[in-house]
Amino acid sequence: MKVLIAGANGQIGKHLVKFIQEDENLEAKAMIRSEEQAAYFEDLGAEVAVVNLQDDIDVIAKAAEGADAVVFTAGSGPHTGPDKTLMIDLDGAVKTIEAAKQANVKRFVMVSSFSTDREAIQSAPESFAPYVVAKHYADEWLKSTDLDYTIVHPGALTNDPGSNRVELAERVNVKEDSNYTDSIKVPREDIARVIVATLKNDATIGKSFQVIGGDTPVPEAVESI
Amino acid sequence: MKVLIAGANGQIGKHLVKFIQEDENLEAKAMIRSEEQAAYFEDLGAEVAVVNLQDDIDVIAKAAEGADAVVFTAGSGPHTGPDKTLMIDLDGAVKTIEAAKQANVKRFVMVSSFSTDREAIQSAPESFAPYVVAKHYADEWLKSTDLDYTIVHPGALTNDPGSNRVELAERVNVKEDSNYTDSIKVPREDIARVIVATLKNDATIGKSFQVIGGDTPVPEAVESI
Repeated sequence: MKVLIAGANGQIGKHLVKFIQEDENLEAKAMIRSEEQAAYFEDLGAEVAVVNLQDDIDVIAKAAEGADAVVFTAGSGPHTGPDKTLMIDLDGAVKTIEAAKQANVKRFVMVSSFSTDREAIQSAPESFAPYVVAKHYADEWLKSTDLDYTIVHPGALTNDPGSNRVELAERVNVKEDSNYTDSIKVPREDIARVIVATLKNDATIGKSFQVIGGDTPVPEAVESI
Repeated sequence: MKVLIAGANGQIGKHLVKFIQEDENLEAKAMIRSEEQAAYFEDLGAEVAVVNLQDDIDVIAKAAEGADAVVFTAGSGPHTGPDKTLMIDLDGAVKTIEAAKQANVKRFVMVSSFSTDREAIQSAPESFAPYVVAKHYADEWLKSTDLDYTIVHPGALTNDPGSNRVELAERVNVKEDSNYTDSIKVPREDIARVIVATLKNDATIGKSFQVIGGDTPVPEAVESI
């Protein structure tokens, strides 16, 4: 299975390409913004496509041709300006979805934000709300397509080494009496492992789930969905 | 016909409430952000609802109850920060659409931007593109509902006095050899008149059209759609 990764040079993306390349049934095509980012992926034996997410749908679709799945893990992140949030997290995501359709790639895995529903928008701190809005509309757009989608909602991402264990559910239980951000922490490395397990498990099609740090081995946690 | 106007205190909104109040078959309910903005509308004999577009859908739906139509002409405008663009031009618009559905108001007139299609996003200057993206997704959301919608795409808005004459078409002809912004100018007052004519003409349901300054009397121009 060949997987195009939009946002391959991001922090999740880099782990993801590595894990995909390590898996004998998967191969990665890393979508990156500039040729200068290529070495890391070429060293892993991954194919590379240089595409800017502000390019036309056609350009992204060309990169998606021949792939069996697309993973969107690009993100300006909540700390860049909201102009990039609109252009990348919302419009870049939707263009990648449309590109997948155009290239006849049915499988699509979206890396979203922890909570992107209406309640999350309304309760978000003012500085964070625009990011949640962008992710909300990208998720809604994906759900309205007939792609074989899965939406992964990671908790508060860390660069801690992964444990290959997580807690995963449509809505995970967040411990009420602890620091909220601490209680939903999850290493980016484990999110990359969850994405790999998701790609290998068709029972995740049409599902959305949250992931935080936990005790269940990743494949088993994904299996439980 | 009672018309709820989201963004009544905006520059188009103020003209619109006035024209609606002058029309014997229409009455306005002005949705405004604060009580301090109420005097202008109360002087016109219009009803007032104090609602912030960052409030819940329920709050907006309550304001829409009993209305026969909703006009969305709120806008952070292209010159506020893109955080407000996301929260008002996109999410505020979508919440108003959802509120109309919830309150069983079928008729919805959206004041959009001149061009909001994919081509417009891709060709927009970098500083303007996030605004076009926000308007694009709001328009797409509206089109995907079963509301009786009309989307009005005004040209470059001015505060010149209206002439009650416009050029109006699905895509207007823009003179190629003149200054672009000048060639698509249109007074806000005339856009307000176009909205009134739209509300009174059910043949505009399901239609989107651009409006710039021109020579055709407004009702006749709207009739031609």
